[in-house]
Amino acid sequence: MLTMQDALLALTRYWTERGAMVVQPFNTEVGAGTLNPATVLRVLGPEPWRVAYVEPSVRPDDARYGENPNRLQTHTQFQVILKPDPGNPQELYLGSLQALGIDVAAHDVRFVEDNWASPALGAWGLGWEVWLDGLEITQFTYFQQAGGQTLDPVSVEITYGVERIMMALQGVAHFKDIAYAPGISYGEAFGQAEYEMSRFYLDDADVDTQRRLFEDYAAEARRLLDARLPVPAHIHVLKCSHTFNVLDARGAVSTTERAKAFARMRGLAREVAGLWSERRSELDHPLGLVPALPQAAAPTEFPAVEGAHPLLFEIGTEELPPHEVTRTAAAVERALTEKLAATRLGHGAITTYATPRRVIAVVDAVEPVEPDAERTVRGPKAAAAYDADGNPTKAAAGFARGQGVDPAELRRIDVDGVEYVGITRTDIGKGAVEVLSGVLGAVVAELRADKNMRWSDPKLSFTRPVRWLLALLGTTPVPVAVSALTAGHTTRVHRTAADPVVEVASAEGYLDFLAGHGIVADQRRRRDLVVSSAAELAATVGGVVDGESALVDEITNLVEEPNAVLGSFDARYLELPAEILTTVMRKHQRYLPVRDADGALLPHFVAVANGACDHDKVRAGNEAVLRARYEDASFFWRADLRTPPERMKEGIAKLAFEERLGSVAQRADRIASVALALGAAAGLSEEDDAVLRAAAGLAKFDLGSQMVIELTSLAGTMAREYARRAGQPESVAQALYDMELPRSGGGAVPTTVPGALLALADRFDLLAGLFAVGAKPTGSSDPFGLRRAGAGVVAILRAFPRLSGLTVPFGLSTAADQVRAQGIGVDDAVLAEVAEFVKRRYEQVLLDAGTPHEQVGAVLPLADAPATADAAVAELAGLTTDPGFAGLVAALQRVRRIVPADTGAGYDPAALVEPAELELHQVFAKAHAAGGTGLAGFVVAASPLTEPVNTFFDAVLVMAPEPALRAARLGLLASIRDWAAPVLDWQALGTSLEA
Amino acid sequence: MLTMQDALLALTRYWTERGAMVVQPFNTEVGAGTLNPATVLRVLGPEPWRVAYVEPSVRPDDARYGENPNRLQTHTQFQVILKPDPGNPQELYLGSLQALGIDVAAHDVRFVEDNWASPALGAWGLGWEVWLDGLEITQFTYFQQAGGQTLDPVSVEITYGVERIMMALQGVAHFKDIAYAPGISYGEAFGQAEYEMSRFYLDDADVDTQRRLFEDYAAEARRLLDARLPVPAHIHVLKCSHTFNVLDARGAVSTTERAKAFARMRGLAREVAGLWSERRSELDHPLGLVPALPQAAAPTEFPAVEGAHPLLFEIGTEELPPHEVTRTAAAVERALTEKLAATRLGHGAITTYATPRRVIAVVDAVEPVEPDAERTVRGPKAAAAYDADGNPTKAAAGFARGQGVDPAELRRIDVDGVEYVGITRTDIGKGAVEVLSGVLGAVVAELRADKNMRWSDPKLSFTRPVRWLLALLGTTPVPVAVSALTAGHTTRVHRTAADPVVEVASAEGYLDFLAGHGIVADQRRRRDLVVSSAAELAATVGGVVDGESALVDEITNLVEEPNAVLGSFDARYLELPAEILTTVMRKHQRYLPVRDADGALLPHFVAVANGACDHDKVRAGNEAVLRARYEDASFFWRADLRTPPERMKEGIAKLAFEERLGSVAQRADRIASVALALGAAAGLSEEDDAVLRAAAGLAKFDLGSQMVIELTSLAGTMAREYARRAGQPESVAQALYDMELPRSGGGAVPTTVPGALLALADRFDLLAGLFAVGAKPTGSSDPFGLRRAGAGVVAILRAFPRLSGLTVPFGLSTAADQVRAQGIGVDDAVLAEVAEFVKRRYEQVLLDAGTPHEQVGAVLPLADAPATADAAVAELAGLTTDPGFAGLVAALQRVRRIVPADTGAGYDPAALVEPAELELHQVFAKAHAAGGTGLAGFVVAASPLTEPVNTFFDAVLVMAPEPALRAARLGLLASIRDWAAPVLDWQALGTSLEA
Repeated sequence: MLTMQDALLALTRYWTERGAMVVQPFNTEVGAGTLNPATVLRVLGPEPWRVAYVEPSVRPDDARYGENPNRLQTHTQFQVILKPDPGNPQELYLGSLQALGIDVAAHDVRFVEDNWASPALGAWGLGWEVWLDGLEITQFTYFQQAGGQTLDPVSVEITYGVERIMMALQGVAHFKDIAYAPGISYGEAFGQAEYEMSRFYLDDADVDTQRRLFEDYAAEARRLLDARLPVPAHIHVLKCSHTFNVLDARGAVSTTERAKAFARMRGLAREVAGLWSERRSELDHPLGLVPALPQAAAPTEFPAVEGAHPLLFEIGTEELPPHEVTRTAAAVERALTEKLAATRLGHGAITTYATPRRVIAVVDAVEPVEPDAERTVRGPKAAAAYDADGNPTKAAAGFARGQGVDPAELRRIDVDGVEYVGITRTDIGKGAVEVLSGVLGAVVAELRADKNMRWSDPKLSFTRPVRWLLALLGTTPVPVAVSALTAGHTTRVHRTAADPVVEVASAEGYLDFLAGHGIVADQRRRRDLVVSSAAELAATVGGVVDGESALVDEITNLVEEPNAVLGSFDARYLELPAEILTTVMRKHQRYLPVRDADGALLPHFVAVANGACDHDKVRAGNEAVLRARYEDASFFWRADLRTPPERMKEGIAKLAFEERLGSVAQRADRIASVALALGAAAGLSEEDDAVLRAAAGLAKFDLGSQMVIELTSLAGTMAREYARRAGQPESVAQALYDMELPRSGGGAVPTTVPGALLALADRFDLLAGLFAVGAKPTGSSDPFGLRRAGAGVVAILRAFPRLSGLTVPFGLSTAADQVRAQGIGVDDAVLAEVAEFVKRRYEQVLLDAGTPHEQVGAVLPLADAPATADAAVAELAGLTTDPGFAGLVAALQRVRRIVPADTGAGYDPAALVEPAELELHQVFAKAHAAGGTGLAGFVVAASPLTEPVNTFFDAVLVMAPEPALRAARLGLLASIRDWAAPVLDWQALGTSLEA
Repeated sequence: MLTMQDALLALTRYWTERGAMVVQPFNTEVGAGTLNPATVLRVLGPEPWRVAYVEPSVRPDDARYGENPNRLQTHTQFQVILKPDPGNPQELYLGSLQALGIDVAAHDVRFVEDNWASPALGAWGLGWEVWLDGLEITQFTYFQQAGGQTLDPVSVEITYGVERIMMALQGVAHFKDIAYAPGISYGEAFGQAEYEMSRFYLDDADVDTQRRLFEDYAAEARRLLDARLPVPAHIHVLKCSHTFNVLDARGAVSTTERAKAFARMRGLAREVAGLWSERRSELDHPLGLVPALPQAAAPTEFPAVEGAHPLLFEIGTEELPPHEVTRTAAAVERALTEKLAATRLGHGAITTYATPRRVIAVVDAVEPVEPDAERTVRGPKAAAAYDADGNPTKAAAGFARGQGVDPAELRRIDVDGVEYVGITRTDIGKGAVEVLSGVLGAVVAELRADKNMRWSDPKLSFTRPVRWLLALLGTTPVPVAVSALTAGHTTRVHRTAADPVVEVASAEGYLDFLAGHGIVADQRRRRDLVVSSAAELAATVGGVVDGESALVDEITNLVEEPNAVLGSFDARYLELPAEILTTVMRKHQRYLPVRDADGALLPHFVAVANGACDHDKVRAGNEAVLRARYEDASFFWRADLRTPPERMKEGIAKLAFEERLGSVAQRADRIASVALALGAAAGLSEEDDAVLRAAAGLAKFDLGSQMVIELTSLAGTMAREYARRAGQPESVAQALYDMELPRSGGGAVPTTVPGALLALADRFDLLAGLFAVGAKPTGSSDPFGLRRAGAGVVAILRAFPRLSGLTVPFGLSTAADQVRAQGIGVDDAVLAEVAEFVKRRYEQVLLDAGTPHEQVGAVLPLADAPATADAAVAELAGLTTDPGFAGLVAALQRVRRIVPADTGAGYDPAALVEPAELELHQVFAKAHAAGGTGLAGFVVAASPLTEPVNTFFDAVLVMAPEPALRAARLGLLASIRDWAAPVLDWQALGTSLEA
């Protein structure tokens, strides 16, 4: 049995044998190994650094008196920093697992996207959680920024969660049962400290004292920065941070305090980083500089090929985030198509395939060379090219000289009827290999993702490191050089294969070749395999796997070879609400839930491992992970059930929402007020009103539950569950559930009016509040999910036509009143901007649904009440093929075009003189009086105008010289225009119908 | 090259392979690994614990900006705790050195007495520094008490100083040059932190902030104790302690603050320890209990031997403190002599031999058995034993029954003329082996030293562990069982021997046997070897080793086989004052200095290693140690020379002397005042007065020098050096030197009057002050050296008869005035007690010099002025053989005996009537008038009284019935008595002369 101390020693030995220096845990409390100066300072600047150390990491908030099996106030990290990225950090890491005795070929070890950011440290990086049979055992990050500085070179940070690894290796269910040393369990060694420190952090630390300590540490850090001493300054920032964590665990940090404290610590940490870098420069970088990785030499030899051949191009990467797998395949296909189109190289179809570790492009039948091409070079106009004697002028001679030809070789060229002189050149076609070399290099150089990172490569930047390139034209290697990479004729297969790097002889049959190595490159086929194997396994227990399309997509992109494993869990967990169970399975574990024919959960799941593995081991591991998570959830569930909703709600006062907008409790109060105001405006039934009031009083209470703190996506779901169990009427419980809907674009919307009102209030508050404090989305950054909120408003209002009186501006203005009541200014212009922002969401929904662009444009003026606009869209759909309607639109357009925008409606009918205008006046007066509801009503009323309008324009000179007459004519037209204007944006519509 | 990180891993591996658990360094700053709860709490209570860990130990006071080659604000300890003592911890430890690649057979590895006590932790232990070729590399302690609790079982604490070990192993002269990891030096890795943390500790830490932190931590610790949480309470005590150290390094701790802070931390630490023990009990000792080591079975079989044989008895120990080697040999000899005397076993001479690891007793010619012995048992008196009929009475019958004999067997016994009845029994003599078994067991059980400790043995207690017993009578093993030990027929030789445990066949020739294993058991022979080999080596460089008797004694008891090595040091260090060089050699390194014929130091030394070793390695190691120490000393010397005495003196205000008596500066001021007062009383020459004033102003200034802070025994020596170099007159420099004399009993005394006055003032202040605050010596405890101070006063006053007017009471009273001026009450009774205490020192000096007891007693009344008493002693010596003097003494004794103590002097001569009394009156009046100086003068004057006194007693009835006459006679005698009384204690003297 490998004890925990053996494991720590084994890791230490493994990494020192690979050149890492060992340092000691830091001698002041840190929340993570990252905060040890051996990481957070050493990753800065140009010096190399390779270090490994143990770090007992103190998380006061995780204190549980030693009772929770998986949570400790101090857990043990093993931290490794590799600076620079050695090029094979994943392989090195897997070696370390083997050094721990883990058979990585038998187990399912995977790199699952997990990005890391610590705004408090001004730090972020991209990387993965490493999963061992579904258990997160390591955080693996390419550190991109720290202390607000961009890191160059980047460091690889590997953080092992040692207790978790030990629990898995030793097969124990509680951290106290870990064999720490021979004959001594973790609990025996550290149980008392775990209990007592939990007591200190949760119950006994003196709040006033800790507050004073925080101030003293911060002030000392400040002074030390001024004295240019980054090391002791850093220590004091750490002390600040720990003290803050103690206060937080004691529940003593208000929202305002939290924001202030974070800002202060962030500022200090950034200064420490800056000062450290300066000092290292002043000390002339005692550890030297990381040498630059040399750029690959540009290829100069391009073998000729005969006949057409398929091209195989593979970009090998470290594990891509699932959504980038698909995205990158598409981007490569697009880039290749465009770039080949810019050459003259003939080729057949372009197909791409993608797995987490590779994007493959296959181009059929690439011609061996580009055809030659003629090209005309235009010189001066013929008129200026020859003098009266027909001799070349200076201009012509100059042009000829510039082109390196004799003036006699110039010939006449006709361009759009103008005659020039010029020459014709022949561009000799390049060989396919040379053309492809350039194209493929450019494709790699231009790879980009949503979030891009740097690694050891001096120039590339992508979502994850590109580690190899494979380019074959038939059997001929295509030389490609991009930054430090060159293409070869090898690929990499499973890392656990006996021979993980294999030669590829030919582009032909590459997918079969990969299949022979256990890699299913075609994502469509992988997906089918996931679905069919999951279904097959589920059937063995009488179940099905249904309705998991998004998850199946994700799983497809998490593996190169799906290997489904059926696992089970104790049926007693089925007493938990199904949403809890499925949330854990899907979100945390990417397991497919198994249900019976009626849709009820069965105590089984399908995990999809990557590649061949020992099913029993993998199953056992995954089952243990799920058991631990369900055990946690049961713990929260039971604890929450002991807490009435009202008391739970008190807890949300401690949760920060946003610095200026205050706590979640303040937000809940605002939402409640807005919802009641909306309800009053909408005019509710007595019953709905009662439900709304009750639910508003409990709004967001479940955010104070342990379950939702742990599994945030269960907000609303837990509210309904806990409200029910606390004896609230089902209608109130449902309203609280509805309040959080829709959860995503296209997601379910509320089913009850009180729920809809709360959901609207929630989103109006979010939009008005955050825009008011300037936190609106920019580019791809939308941390508060405002786009989703806007779309949610639209979806709810579309679903509840009876609430169409609650326009978006009204809702926003109601919400703004509450925000203002908190002393935060909300400008009307800002509200208009938000309304416009919501309108854009509506526009997008219609466009996504295939509504023609011009119809969308036409109904947008109605979009403040999306249900109303929806009705218009529906009506428009029936009208667009109606020639009468087209005539009406055209007539209204003529009217709109002739009348200056500043001409108001209203006219003196007595001033009209011509029959055509009198006729128009009478028909309009009648139509106007008739009126009509909605677009259809307007069309019926307005249709008789088409003919008189057209006659009017044919017969009458609008701009009559007599001012009174002219005014009356313009006034008549303006009146028609303004009557029609609110119904639709006729201009938007008109253009299309006219064409 | 073994890097430092390799070394840490090697130690970790070594100890884990021996069952130690590994924990991490503590995550708050600690000054030593001992403070990690894995030591200071885990050594408490009955649970087993075996742990090893690295501990970066923070000592703000040792911060040197990374400039000093050997001193760091954070140094690395490797800490091991073995609880219980495994019985062979030294052997395990030596194994760990081998694991570090140290060839312990080639090097000189020694265990040199070093006891450890931390009053602040309520902790102490006995043990050693471990020396590697003279370099202290490890602290090895048997922990006896912690947190005020006696430890049972005791723990073995092994603390490696890793940087020192690495410097020695790698042969580098500065810690920054240690190869820490492959390609990375210690300086490269930690140099910046060393500099910056030094800046923080020495210059930049904010004093007010740190003061507040101290208070906050202490208060939090208090609260946590009240909440019964010893672990977080301990952490806060550690934080207190570190903060205190920071304040101290910043020079911000006044004497009062220091005392208060220590008291507070001590109190908290003790409570933590107590609470921890309680909590472990309440938790029912999660790690179980250390099983008791079983007691050895008492021997029951005792082989018979034929003829007389020598007895060999060896008590094998771990390294004894040098002074205990000699002491234990004597104690064993005494105990054996007494205990054998209490048996009837015949034997020859008893001889003992001793080395640091063994005490050997050899008893010649032990008879094989005790002779039988007759023994009389006394019963009732004969008168009560028989009735009138001569039949035994009930009493006699009862006695006979009790003795198991027939009443007829009773016989008559005469005891002091009274007749009893009784019986005679014959005690059969026991065999020698049985007798010796009991005697030897008792000798071991009763072993005691000045300071005793416990180890794994359940019952024994001695200065260091007893690990084996060897007892042979001729060739017959003598079974001995003491506590858990049994005697065998093996001994242990050098630990580095191929076979460290060897069988001993016979008691005969044991010393030769040991010599064959390289052990010189006879301490006299070892001493000769030390002297001769040192002389021989010194001669090779033209030098001698002289005047090092005490050091040679110590060295003799530090080795089992002297192996002298001649080392050298750079001659440039000879520019330092010789006292510095020799102090370092003698006190720190136990090296013998080598001098030329004129007594000037040569750049060589003799180190005496233990047993065979590689001379080149040992020489190189010792030279490196001395170089480092001399480098340190040079550093201090140069730094001190840049500081004028006046400024240096300012530094002593920061040094605490004693809690109530304040700082060393306050003490220096008191001494100066006292010295001036003494000078005024003594009447000085103008020149002496000027010197005294100048020197008094600088008194103790060198205690503020770096040199004296480091080498305290150089106080005075450095004062003279620095004063000279600062341009002070030689007389002032000498007075400052004299002031610290004598340094020990029999040491040199001041040579100048100003120096003598300062030295007196120093000691009067010490005595008066410390007695006043109740800190007088008790038993063997005399932490302030008051016995030495008292002896010093005596020695100085004896050396300066011209100062005999400065009596001890006068000096003490002068000193008391200064103490009182500081607001500390000094009772007159206390001063009388001190004077008596000093008198006892004088008495001891005379007795030690062989002055007859009665003469000593006789002159004690004069001892307040020791020079005067000395004169009396000298005169007495001439008088004791003088019959006239004897007559005088006898006469004065007769006088003293007859007069009641409460009878006062004075009488009415007119009341006298008898001729004898009138004669006495007249002779006395004349003698009294004549007077005389000193004892001699008195004797001349008083001798004529002998005859009249004797006549008076023969002829006169003193107790005449008439009151007036009786009063006159008694008054006359009392007058004679009182006239003689101040001269001598006639009673003390008289007894002996009369006898």
